[in-house]
This record gives sequence, C-alpha cells and structure tokens, in this order.
Amino acid sequence: MPSNVDLNADLGESFGIWQLGDDESMLGLVTSANVACGLHAGDPALLVRTCRSAARHGVRIGAQVSYRDLTGFGRRFIDVEPDELTADVIYQIGALQAIAHSVGADVSYVKPHGALYNAIVRHKEQAAAVAAAVHAVDPELPVLGLAGSAFFDEADKLGLRTVAEAFADRAYQPDGTLVSRREAGAVLHDAAEIADRVARMVTTGQVTAVDGSTIGITVESVCVHGDSPGAVEIATAVRERLLAEGTELSAFS
Amino acid sequence: MPSNVDLNADLGESFGIWQLGDDESMLGLVTSANVACGLHAGDPALLVRTCRSAARHGVRIGAQVSYRDLTGFGRRFIDVEPDELTADVIYQIGALQAIAHSVGADVSYVKPHGALYNAIVRHKEQAAAVAAAVHAVDPELPVLGLAGSAFFDEADKLGLRTVAEAFADRAYQPDGTLVSRREAGAVLHDAAEIADRVARMVTTGQVTAVDGSTIGITVESVCVHGDSPGAVEIATAVRERLLAEGTELSAFS
Amino acid sequence: MPSNVDLNADLGESFGIWQLGDDESMLGLVTSANVACGLHAGDPALLVRTCRSAARHGVRIGAQVSYRDLTGFGRRFIDVEPDELTADVIYQIGALQAIAHSVGADVSYVKPHGALYNAIVRHKEQAAAVAAAVHAVDPELPVLGLAGSAFFDEADKLGLRTVAEAFADRAYQPDGTLVSRREAGAVLHDAAEIADRVARMVTTGQVTAVDGSTIGITVESVCVHGDSPGAVEIATAVRERLLAEGTELSAFS
Amino acid sequence: MPSNVDLNADLGESFGIWQLGDDESMLGLVTSANVACGLHAGDPALLVRTCRSAARHGVRIGAQVSYRDLTGFGRRFIDVEPDELTADVIYQIGALQAIAHSVGADVSYVKPHGALYNAIVRHKEQAAAVAAAVHAVDPELPVLGLAGSAFFDEADKLGLRTVAEAFADRAYQPDGTLVSRREAGAVLHDAAEIADRVARMVTTGQVTAVDGSTIGITVESVCVHGDSPGAVEIATAVRERLLAEGTELSAFS
Repeated sequence: MPSNVDLNADLGESFGIWQLGDDESMLGLVTSANVACGLHAGDPALLVRTCRSAARHGVRIGAQVSYRDLTGFGRRFIDVEPDELTADVIYQIGALQAIAHSVGADVSYVKPHGALYNAIVRHKEQAAAVAAAVHAVDPELPVLGLAGSAFFDEADKLGLRTVAEAFADRAYQPDGTLVSRREAGAVLHDAAEIADRVARMVTTGQVTAVDGSTIGITVESVCVHGDSPGAVEIATAVRERLLAEGTELSAFS
Repeated sequence: MPSNVDLNADLGESFGIWQLGDDESMLGLVTSANVACGLHAGDPALLVRTCRSAARHGVRIGAQVSYRDLTGFGRRFIDVEPDELTADVIYQIGALQAIAHSVGADVSYVKPHGALYNAIVRHKEQAAAVAAAVHAVDPELPVLGLAGSAFFDEADKLGLRTVAEAFADRAYQPDGTLVSRREAGAVLHDAAEIADRVARMVTTGQVTAVDGSTIGITVESVCVHGDSPGAVEIATAVRERLLAEGTELSAFS
Repeated sequence: MPSNVDLNADLGESFGIWQLGDDESMLGLVTSANVACGLHAGDPALLVRTCRSAARHGVRIGAQVSYRDLTGFGRRFIDVEPDELTADVIYQIGALQAIAHSVGADVSYVKPHGALYNAIVRHKEQAAAVAAAVHAVDPELPVLGLAGSAFFDEADKLGLRTVAEAFADRAYQPDGTLVSRREAGAVLHDAAEIADRVARMVTTGQVTAVDGSTIGITVESVCVHGDSPGAVEIATAVRERLLAEGTELSAFS
Repeated sequence: MPSNVDLNADLGESFGIWQLGDDESMLGLVTSANVACGLHAGDPALLVRTCRSAARHGVRIGAQVSYRDLTGFGRRFIDVEPDELTADVIYQIGALQAIAHSVGADVSYVKPHGALYNAIVRHKEQAAAVAAAVHAVDPELPVLGLAGSAFFDEADKLGLRTVAEAFADRAYQPDGTLVSRREAGAVLHDAAEIADRVARMVTTGQVTAVDGSTIGITVESVCVHGDSPGAVEIATAVRERLLAEGTELSAFS
C-alpha cells in the first residue's frame, strides 16, 4: 500500500484556434503533465504556454508522443516502420525538451499517446522502436505505461525506468488491458464512482474488470483525463478522495 | 583576407518518398550542413540518416529553421505572429538537437531557410522572433545569415554570435540583398563562373551586383546549394578553387 | 431599401477531435452556410455531416475557400503564387461539391476565408487567381465578398455574379475595409448593438466606421460569425431584429 | 484472349518542390492515368498540370485515392473508421473532378492507392467504405482493382463496374494477392522479363506466382509503375510487346 502516488493528465492538446480541455484547472490538480508534442495535437506556441504554466504550478512535464496524425488525434493505429517510429519519437521529445527549456523547465518522462499507447501493449516492433527512441534521447528518462505490456518489456531490456499507471476513468479487460474506446462502456463518467475505483486501485492494488472479475493492478501513477466532459470535476474528486485516504500526491521519483 | 572559410549547404531536404539533392556527395565537400527540421522538408527518419552521415563525414550540423510550409517548401512568406514564430523555431531546433544527439552529434548553429531567411533581412518583428528563439534554446548558438540584416541586428542585441555568409550561386542587389528567385538571373549556373565569384568574395570581400556595380561583402561562410542541378559539380568547383587559392576550408569557430 | 437579405455564417470549421462553434444552432438561424473545405478547417467526415445538416435545414451551401494553413486557421497572409492559389481554390471547391452531392445538396457560391478574404481586397494577383478558380469550376457560381474590392473587380471581368456582404460584428475603416483582428475594437460583442447596426446597414445602406464617420455600405448578405462567444445569441438578435423591421431573410438569388 | 487491354500508371505523385517519376514520358505510353488526389501526393497546382497533360495526350484520368498520409506516401495501413474513410475518398474524387473539369477533362474511374489498395483486398469495412464513396459521388464510375478482392465484392453489391487489373512488375502470391513491398522479390526490374510476363497474362490469363505455381489472373487493365527506376523503359517494353502480339491498347469501356 503506497503512501504516495502520482496523478497525471494529458495536456497541451489544443491546436491553433481549437481548444481542448481546461489545462489551467487541471494543472492545479495533477502532479505530472503529459504534454503533447505536435504530431497529434499541440502547436508550438501552445506548448510554450502549457510548459510555462506547468512550471509555474510546479507540475512535472512529460513528453506525450504519438503517431503523426492530427486529423485522427493520434487515435488510429498506423503501421509505421520501426525506424520511422523511432525517429518520430526522438523528434517529438526533442522538440518538447527545447520548449520546456525555453521556460526554465525540463522533460522528465515520456508517455505514448492514444493508438500508439494501445498498439505497443502487444506490438513488439513498435514497442521496441519507442523504447529505443527514449533511450537514444536520454537513458535516464522514465517511461509511463501499462504494466505487463510489450513496451515495458522492451524498456526493461534497455534499462529504462518504467512507471506503471492506472486509468481512473477507463474500463479494464480481464487481462489488464483497456477496453477500446470504440466499445460501449469503455469510459466511466461518474466522478464519485471513479474516485472510489481509484482509491481501491491505489490502496489495494485491485480493480474490477469489465466482466466483473477482480484483477490486480500496479499503480505508481494514476491517469485522469483532461479532455472529457467533467474532467476537472473527476480529477478533483480523485484528488480529494486520495488525500482523504491519507495518500500523498507527488510526482514519481 | 581570411586564410580560412566555412562552406555550408542545405541538406536533409528530402521528404518521405521524395528525394532532393545528393546529400551524400555534398557531405564530402562542405564543412557545415544546414539540416532541415521538418517544417519545410525533412521527415524525422531522413533527418536521423542525414545527421548520422554528417557526423561520419566530420561535417558540423546546423538547424535550418523555416516557416511551417511543406507544400511551398518554406519559400512563401507567411505573416505569422512573432510569438508563434518564436515557438516554431524553438520547436525545430529542439527536434533536430535530439536527433543529432541520438547519433552522437550536436546542433552547432542555426540558419533560417527560404522565405524566412529573406523576410528577416528587413522584417524586424520576425527577425526578433527568430533571434529570441535561438537565445531561448541556447545563448551560445551562433546564427548564420546576411550581414547588415535586421536579423543580425536583433541577434546582436541578444548577444548572439553572428556569422555572415555569402551565396555562391545567387545574384546580389546593389544593397547586398539577394535577387528574388522569382526574377530572371537570380541563380547562377556556370560552375567556373561561380568558383571565380566565390574566390573573389572570399579573398577581396567584393562581389559584382546584378546592376554591374561592385559591392563589399562580409564572408565567414559560403553557401553552396545542394538541390540545384549541377550542385555537386558547383560545390566541387568552389571547393577546389578555394583550396587552390590557399584558403583553408573549416567550420567557423 | 431591400425587402429581403441573406444571412450567412462560417460553418464546418471544427477539425477532427476539435470542435468550433455551434453549427447545429446556427443552421437554424442563417440562410447560407459558408462551409470550410479542409485547408483551414473541416475534416471530410465533418464536412459530410455539416452539408447533410445544412440540407436538412434548407440552408444553402457555399465553399469557404482558404489558404492552406490549418495551424493558423487561414488567418495568416501567405504569399502564394497565383497559379498555385488558383489550383488550391479549384481543389477546395471540387472537394466540397462532391461532399455536398453525396448528401443530395449543391455548392451554390464561393466565399474566401480569413487572411485570403482580407488580402484580395487589394492584392490584384491573388484576387484574379481566386476569381479564375471560381470561373474555371463553374462560371455560374456567385462569389460573396466585399463591395469595391479587387476581388470583385476581377470577378466582374470574368462575368461572375458578385454578392456584397456586410459583417454584423466587425468594425469598419473609413474606406469600407475591415479593421484587422489584430487591433483592439475589431470585433463587436454586444448583441443588441450589433442587431441595431445590422438593421441600419440593411435598411439605410449606412454604417458608422471606427473613426466615427458614416460610410455607405452595400448589403446583399449579412455575415454573422459562428465561432465567437455568444455567436448564437448574436445571430438570433440580428435575425429577430431584421424580421421585426419587416426584412425577409432568404438566400440571395 | 482479349484483343485489347488498358495500360494504367500512377501519375501526379510529385509534391511541391519534390519530383517523382517522369509523367510526361509515361503519358505518351499509357491509356489511363491514375492521378493522385493530394492526400498521399499531388499538390493541386501539379494536379492541374498533370490533368492538362493527360488530356492533351488523350489519356483517360482516374482518381487515385489514398489514406491521408503524405509522410508515408500512403503506404502505411491506417486503421481509419469507415465513415471517415468514405468522406476522405469522396473529398479526393471531388477535388480531382474539379481540377480535371478546369482543363476540359473528366475523372472516369477510381483506383485506390498503396496501403489502402492492399488493405481492401481483405478488410471488408474499409472496402465497403471506399465502394460507398465512389457510389455516392457517381454510381457510374468504374473502380480499378484486384479481382476477387473484398473491394470488388463490395463494389459489386452497389452495382459499380469493376475493372480487374494485373501488375506488370509485382510478384504474386499463390492466392492472387501481391507480395508485400516489404519483402524481397516483391518488385521485378527486368524490362524484357516484365514484358514477357505481361504478354502471357494478357493472352493466356495466367501468371507464375512467387512459389513457382501457375495461377489464373483476370486482366482488363495492366498497371505499369511510373515511379520506379526504369519505369519508362519498362512501360515502353510492355507496350511494344503487347502491340507486337497484336493486342490493341485502349482504355477500358
């Protein structure tokens, strides 16, 4: 039973004129910000503002790397060659590093986004490609992801620090992977139910899967979504519930 | 009369399936490579290959930053707001830094590309925006550009090292700016004539403008183009002529 | 004093995951929909939904053509060559025509967007390029724009029908052009004031410019914005005020 | 044994500054041009020039529709939702139709490109999405593709005319599908061997698969590649060999 846990959210996912999420409010609630890197969302000027605000809030910045797909918001699997994927990921991390540095901050970890996140749960070649990219940029950069995934296997091989996260508002399959967003019931919406669920995951290491079974779950960080309706309300409920349970919220070490 | 001069060329300007220029040959001739950063050319996988090859040839790498315009190859002026331009330039430099680091190399300078290069000869706001971006990434990064330009004025204000370059194959106006590519005679094609011209620029600090007048020109680096027909032949002629004149070719300090 | 006037708004300006404006509400208020064509906003799947909804509401569809600039939402001048601009505009109109046809509707007119709209008030070459594109697609397609603009001059030369529009919520300069969005006071926000202003424009052909002078204005169509805060409220106020004045709202002939 | 056959090639696949293939030469050899539509290649200004040249050569124009993927040249499978794919395909056909009309020509058929072509050999949902798009634009538009594919099944259901093509320079698997470009031996390079192979396919309806077995093949059109090294030489060899065998080359009816 951990006495502290990290709370992460996807931020910097607006693009140009288009707004997504309430980043300013979320930055008052989370301890780690997965900031988009421009390939699925996040024009550079927005990324500067997001990193500046994260730094001001004392929230740690991670690079949220994605397939190159603005139109699909990085939510569509792309059968990209491993060497191209590695290069795309290096490119994204570097771009965000320079932006973070320009406001006196750093990129402290890497988290894959959307369809890439889901693909590398099982897709060994793409998993290895992402791990290789992180390692090439900085072997000390931790990666945030799903325990038991091919991505973590590949990261382990390269000696990268892996940080296991749980999703506050997503339904789990019995094997510990996420239910696809394309299926009904994939996303939970009730703030109190979500807070209960997270408290149980953090304090007992267990969660109820979509089929009703209880499964074990490793949680060093909890992901709350920043772009769903009610995102701020949900993040607030999760945060308050964890604090009430005596769990300290702090960025993973 | 300088005993040594830098020879730079734009490289890494292919994109996906599309090839431009003979980078491998050019890397055997130049001392500095202005490598595209993805916004006007250069997909990340290509940039990795280009940086790796530059490192192998002992050629220094600079970030060739551009407006966001793949369709127009960065050759069309875009009236972008200064803060957006600053962010775009930081983004590009950072992306290339990470790619260079991944192959054991570094980004050693910054050179604006195409329409951005031309715009900031006179456009103070955009000039200041680019200079601010370079300074934000690393105040020690030199910038390559046109002596007397607004860009150099703004770079001077921020204490950036400015490196004046001359163009081997471009016609000059009497005020020392380039004749637009849209005008006839803007680009020279005869290798021997170009070599003569460069030798004169480097050894005497003078060049004949498009109206026949002789103008002074400051040259710490000579730009040879990598993508024009005959690029390799021209670069070879320039290189051999300079060496024959007793000028050493080495990256600027 | 016209007994009827057209009410147009920019719609279909979301992109992928990103929403902009309340198109469904606006379609209940306007008589013509300027639908984006993908180069500044509007992914194809959204455009299908927008055209289908416009058809269901009996709202006429126009092609809102733009510079190729998703990141800047088409609000940045791009110095594109005329033949490239002509091709980009033909491309956009055709794409929207096929989408409109697929839901049993048609593209009935063309309206330039954002920076292109503003540029061709005075930029003869780009104005001619846009007019040539419309003419090449269909010489019977009317164009919506600013009376007295270079665009209308060029459209006239080609025999295109020009439809003069006024902007409900934009400040005018004494010469009848719009105050730039980059300047304070460029956009009006008070629904009642805007409704008064439009009623005066439509019934008297006059409007107060930003310097306090009264200028004449030709109005066959009134543009209400769909993406500003309070857009629906403003459009409702304008619509109700015009109906109260006895002006019929109908698409221009 | 057909007395005539169509010869098609992918054209208009340059983009901006980047050239691919020798379209002008290919247009003197083929009877149908599969012209890119901007999503994997083909900026609009190029497409205008390509359509104009095709019209001048009396070569029929087809819309070569693709996934939205300039960086990957449409050669990477994308798991796009069917309704988005349908909209993307309608968008592309419409854009090319307007461009073709602007030079006095028409779009006479549709051919999917690259990874989309390969995916819809078996991917029912995407196959149905592409067929639905073609049908929505014009139920009279034929589609070019692989006999026995899911795409042809779905096209048949909608009453679309299907035209079976064979690839001059690609290796076949025993089931009649293409060997992936990622595998060695996927592409043939010897002009004489290719010409022999095509002649046999056209006159006997048979081809040797990669495992040495003889398989039947339906051929109303033969695809020769426009972008491979030696493309013009290969197309010339195929054309001359077919003419020598007494086969007439003409666009399919």
